[in-house]
Amino acid sequence: MSDREKKISDNIATLKAKSKNEPVASFLKMDLLELAPGYSRVAMRVLPEHQNFNGLTFGGMVMAVADQAFAYGCNSLMFPSYASQINIHFIAAAEVGDELIAECRVVKSGRRVGLSEMTVTNQDGKLIAKATGTSIPVDKP
Amino acid sequence: MSDREKKISDNIATLKAKSKNEPVASFLKMDLLELAPGYSRVAMRVLPEHQNFNGLTFGGMVMAVADQAFAYGCNSLMFPSYASQINIHFIAAAEVGDELIAECRVVKSGRRVGLSEMTVTNQDGKLIAKATGTSIPVDKP
Amino acid sequence: MSDREKKISDNIATLKAKSKNEPVASFLKMDLLELAPGYSRVAMRVLPEHQNFNGLTFGGMVMAVADQAFAYGCNSLMFPSYASQINIHFIAAAEVGDELIAECRVVKSGRRVGLSEMTVTNQDGKLIAKATGTSIPVDKP
Amino acid sequence: MSDREKKISDNIATLKAKSKNEPVASFLKMDLLELAPGYSRVAMRVLPEHQNFNGLTFGGMVMAVADQAFAYGCNSLMFPSYASQINIHFIAAAEVGDELIAECRVVKSGRRVGLSEMTVTNQDGKLIAKATGTSIPVDKP
Repeated sequence: MSDREKKISDNIATLKAKSKNEPVASFLKMDLLELAPGYSRVAMRVLPEHQNFNGLTFGGMVMAVADQAFAYGCNSLMFPSYASQINIHFIAAAEVGDELIAECRVVKSGRRVGLSEMTVTNQDGKLIAKATGTSIPVDKP
Repeated sequence: MSDREKKISDNIATLKAKSKNEPVASFLKMDLLELAPGYSRVAMRVLPEHQNFNGLTFGGMVMAVADQAFAYGCNSLMFPSYASQINIHFIAAAEVGDELIAECRVVKSGRRVGLSEMTVTNQDGKLIAKATGTSIPVDKP
Repeated sequence: MSDREKKISDNIATLKAKSKNEPVASFLKMDLLELAPGYSRVAMRVLPEHQNFNGLTFGGMVMAVADQAFAYGCNSLMFPSYASQINIHFIAAAEVGDELIAECRVVKSGRRVGLSEMTVTNQDGKLIAKATGTSIPVDKP
Repeated sequence: MSDREKKISDNIATLKAKSKNEPVASFLKMDLLELAPGYSRVAMRVLPEHQNFNGLTFGGMVMAVADQAFAYGCNSLMFPSYASQINIHFIAAAEVGDELIAECRVVKSGRRVGLSEMTVTNQDGKLIAKATGTSIPVDKP
């Protein structure tokens, strides 16, 4: 295992440990299903309390699960990072009872800036939203 | 009062009525403070359960309050609309205990597409995030 | 051939004909390499006159070729559309002499709104930029 | 004059000098009208060769002038920076003969990341487009 692989493995282990007691994950009932170098997958069930004034699923909930996948994904490589920018496109409505699955794939993880892509699908694989995000490394090497 | 003003006034009255029993507003404790033609203001207090795995406020909560302002703002004019796209830039960290204020200003509200701008500040007026969103009218005139 | 296929085929034929005499394509030396339902590919060579004040390729040129692919891609299906919003992430610098290839893939083409994804690579397949765009149908069905 | 003011003044002087011989500014006929700390204004006239296949102004030209203002604006403070991401919303069509004015205002200029806002208007003050951009400092302090 190279130094780089060792560092990434350590970062992922730390992140997994932290995920056990994450307040907002409990609050929004988001589950980290998978975490690998440059990849994460998070699930969240749409509940009746997520409905907006029109009886539709609040877009903010879809954004939340996408952001959670982004947070894990962009911290799964060399440079622990924070989200600086997110752009999301809503494609189809999520329904109460849906199991939303957000996946994050890191496109670039540089010393100064990173780019990740996120998709949100439901339990049938239907595309609910797509997003991209800019991440900034916390500690400069 | 012109037909247009009447329609807008009716839309706002309907929206205010719906806001009384909005599930996600109760769930995330978001308060609609003001609603006027092309403008909305929403508040949300940052709670301990909003913290992420690093003890920082989850970005998804900031996105949620911005999205809530957007939802009200882009429905406060002629064309009831849904959010199609949101781009957000995170500027400063929100702290537990902060009262976040999200404001939405509609830049354009066309028959086919609308544009709104959102800001999120804390109780001291500190800028936390800025966002823009594309809205699509539900009913074609 | 279904009515839908016939309409799309006609739209593509019309678009290809228009592309023969497109002023901005001549001005910026952008070539339409391929056009298929929901897909387009456009090429543009980076020239010395595309350099900015730092001797680097002007980001606006990368945006231009991405936008050109978007314009063709989002008009290659049922609903002739115009660009309403584009979000682009710059990933690597383009060099003078590079042959930039922009590809557009339509993710969704609805009656009210569409979503497309664009990538810009160079002649070696190196990723230069990624973008997404919102399109709005011109004529309502 | 503080050290900080001196550094910014030097950066602006350097930038103005470089702007005299900028290839892409000549090629696209973009004029730097004003440059001040955290602010820039750039003009570009819409020419017949900027038209797309529908006889409308190519969106890429509007993006170019917005990007040019962004490039100058985000380099007018402490940290010379490059553009990492741009999100643009097209609001109204630009016409051949229009004098487009792009303004950039820096919202945040941090050591790790910056945010700027751009507007594009025509000679009558009509809003053509709004954009935001993420900038990344080149040299770490």
